Amino acid sequence: MRVIITGGAGFLGRKLARALLERGTLAGPDGAPAPVSRLVLFDNVPPDDLGGRAEAATGDIADAGAVRRLVGGDAASVFHLAAIVSAGAEEDFDLGYRVNLDGTRNLLEACRGLAHPPRLVFASSIAVYGGDLPETIEDDTPPLPQTSYGIQKLVGEQLIHDYTRKGYIDGRALRLPTIMVRPAPNRAASTWASSIIREPLQGRDYDCPVEPGVAMACLSPRRTADAFIAAHDLPGDRLGLKRTLLLSGIRATASDMAEAVARNAGNRRLGAIRWRPDAATMRIVRGWPGAARGARAEALGIVPDGSIDEIVRGFIADDLADGPAAEGEAGR
Amino acid sequence: MRVIITGGAGFLGRKLARALLERGTLAGPDGAPAPVSRLVLFDNVPPDDLGGRAEAATGDIADAGAVRRLVGGDAASVFHLAAIVSAGAEEDFDLGYRVNLDGTRNLLEACRGLAHPPRLVFASSIAVYGGDLPETIEDDTPPLPQTSYGIQKLVGEQLIHDYTRKGYIDGRALRLPTIMVRPAPNRAASTWASSIIREPLQGRDYDCPVEPGVAMACLSPRRTADAFIAAHDLPGDRLGLKRTLLLSGIRATASDMAEAVARNAGNRRLGAIRWRPDAATMRIVRGWPGAARGARAEALGIVPDGSIDEIVRGFIADDLADGPAAEGEAGR
Repeated sequence: MRVIITGGAGFLGRKLARALLERGTLAGPDGAPAPVSRLVLFDNVPPDDLGGRAEAATGDIADAGAVRRLVGGDAASVFHLAAIVSAGAEEDFDLGYRVNLDGTRNLLEACRGLAHPPRLVFASSIAVYGGDLPETIEDDTPPLPQTSYGIQKLVGEQLIHDYTRKGYIDGRALRLPTIMVRPAPNRAASTWASSIIREPLQGRDYDCPVEPGVAMACLSPRRTADAFIAAHDLPGDRLGLKRTLLLSGIRATASDMAEAVARNAGNRRLGAIRWRPDAATMRIVRGWPGAARGARAEALGIVPDGSIDEIVRGFIADDLADGPAAEGEAGR
Repeated sequence: MRVIITGGAGFLGRKLARALLERGTLAGPDGAPAPVSRLVLFDNVPPDDLGGRAEAATGDIADAGAVRRLVGGDAASVFHLAAIVSAGAEEDFDLGYRVNLDGTRNLLEACRGLAHPPRLVFASSIAVYGGDLPETIEDDTPPLPQTSYGIQKLVGEQLIHDYTRKGYIDGRALRLPTIMVRPAPNRAASTWASSIIREPLQGRDYDCPVEPGVAMACLSPRRTADAFIAAHDLPGDRLGLKRTLLLSGIRATASDMAEAVARNAGNRRLGAIRWRPDAATMRIVRGWPGAARGARAEALGIVPDGSIDEIVRGFIADDLADGPAAEGEAGR
């Protein structure tokens, strides 16, 4: 079966591609495991070389013709990760709508043209929440997006629901918490939650722009890739009408993260973390939930990380050049 | 100030146009009452003649150029009622998205191009609710649309929020219950709630396709037009971030409606109501809420009808050729 990842050159797209190649199968059209015979990574920049095991398709998701050609007559499954992230969509209103709304519609329309409705997993976000939030987001927390990105993700979920109800796709949408540790900084206000782990572990000092007590809802890229695959493989009737799942994100404060780095560094020489709260960043992150509990996703077998230590160790194993071999016994 | 009603040739558009002409003013750009010097009724068919007091603009809301020309450089306020209704959007998927989503985006984009962000009131619907519903919809009932129309209305609300947050418009969205009494049947599954009043009052027998105990959330066109005007005139800071208001719809069963007709018929010779429940209609209406209580809208001064009798009497006064003069004393 031919499987497509949009945003396949991005951080999460690459992680998902590797996980799919490792696994080798996905639920096929009849629900039984089928070999992933072709994996296509669609993005506006070429993806990393995956040893010839995946195909690159470069194009603009806002170009309906390009997306129709991508999906072709035979896509069996689609993971839709392509997006302009929150700061980008906030800065360039037109670009955000072009990619995050028109792009999603293009993809759904191309899927609607297929003979067999494909399974489609959409990367939504806890950016759909906002306003006066509880400390922990739950399945019944009402969405109230405060950014164009959050609006566009919520709209995408609705389109997934409608196309699924009409039988044009077999869709699922996952509301992702903060995915960390990212291997490089990005422009999101949450980027510190990756940097505070990545930078010290690579021997670089880090000025943390939030106070030690600020908490984030955290999910590792490993667990996220697993969640995409599990959500894909779930039989549609286990989801019913509600095709959106909130993924759990464990609570970790900036100081929890700093301590987990120290516990799991092994014999690395760590960079220092200096607390340099920045008023602008603090204003943004203060409105964010400190944790997310997706009880429904968990009941369906989609599980969060066990601890912030697990997230830090996963990063060391998967993303640091020296890997876990340098880790020693500390913190195991 | 120049005021636009999209869907201005429709049942509700006409009622709103008349109410605006009667009132003569709306909150202007500075919030103070300003004369409605030009009222433009946009629709894909020409509107009724309103004695030369309103201008007709005929066009397709899905045509971005036509909508830009409509809004021009000087629209001060927009009431956005144009839509493909639920049965239509369900039957013609493309048309529903073209009008209800692309049309709304065209209008918002045209408004974004104005020097002064216009007030815009969007007709949303309790079709955004679905699934396992409480007997009475309330402000905190989570939306879960079960039709393309409901999806498109929910998406429209989100766009209103985003364009308002960005300062491109000063938007408000109203979730409308069943508006009745309509002067002519339409293809909605709710059309019986108008027919059961309209037909007997005009001396025609009516076969009611639902059981006498089926309840609907009812709002008269008078109160709806008042709600549009009140929502328009509310200062934005009284709404804050939440620009969507659920309007209350009083609970009335089919038999309540039949009794109200008898009580308020005056000396009319009434047609008979025969109970002929239809399985297909019953299946649809069983999932609908029997009432809606928009406590927030009510606190903002947007009030429901006092009783089903008030709704019936309003129809007699406003829509029957013989009007209330024929009503006699009964039921007053």
